[in-house]
Amino acid sequence: MRVDHIAIAVNNVDEALKNYQKILNVNHLEIEVVPNEKVKVAMLELEDTRIELMEPTADDSPIKKFLVERGEGIHHIAITADDIEKDVARASANGMRMLGGLRTGSYGRRITFIHPKSLNGVLTEFCEAPPKESKAE
Amino acid sequence: MRVDHIAIAVNNVDEALKNYQKILNVNHLEIEVVPNEKVKVAMLELEDTRIELMEPTADDSPIKKFLVERGEGIHHIAITADDIEKDVARASANGMRMLGGLRTGSYGRRITFIHPKSLNGVLTEFCEAPPKESKAE
Repeated sequence: MRVDHIAIAVNNVDEALKNYQKILNVNHLEIEVVPNEKVKVAMLELEDTRIELMEPTADDSPIKKFLVERGEGIHHIAITADDIEKDVARASANGMRMLGGLRTGSYGRRITFIHPKSLNGVLTEFCEAPPKESKAE
Repeated sequence: MRVDHIAIAVNNVDEALKNYQKILNVNHLEIEVVPNEKVKVAMLELEDTRIELMEPTADDSPIKKFLVERGEGIHHIAITADDIEKDVARASANGMRMLGGLRTGSYGRRITFIHPKSLNGVLTEFCEAPPKESKAE
């Protein structure tokens, strides 16, 4: 299992990006708007994992709610499942409260989330491993 | 640059460990008490990075303060510096507010922190790369 990314809620992704570029050597950077999640995202690729900066693009974005309630900060971490169906079934069988079933996230990868109340206050995404050109073996 | 670890403040490290073992395939696990930081720590090694569960061992532990104010959750992320002196100097020169100078953390690695106000609400540790047997090249 790997940490696919660490997601940080920010007010302005371009400003946050300037901040992160002051401290990180970023191997690769992608910026995209994800309309159905109502966020603009910058994905900063490091050697091992990625940092995702997320800015809400609408007032009813869940990220907007997070920012209003808690301010900027880490929103969730995402774990790359080895076998997403098996790993999600195992988590559920172990009493983890899932936030919805498996669904398609960005890049067509299937995802779901574990409720932070089940996991020591940490909202945790399970995401399917990338289909190819993965750094994982 | 790599993400060395993601640190999570928890009330009870043994209970949190049970939770994380319900969802993660952990390659390697170490538990230690760090007296001068007043924490008991479980370090869960994944393929790419590590998750650190931290329980305060004293009422005046900074982790205790965090738990009282915010409850369990992600406390900080740690970035492995390529060259810690250069990377810290660069961050400072770029206006990042550092929390103290370089000092020795666990395993004798030098560390320091960037104030969350400088970095979009995220307390960020810089830590020296492990001296040997590193997965980094």
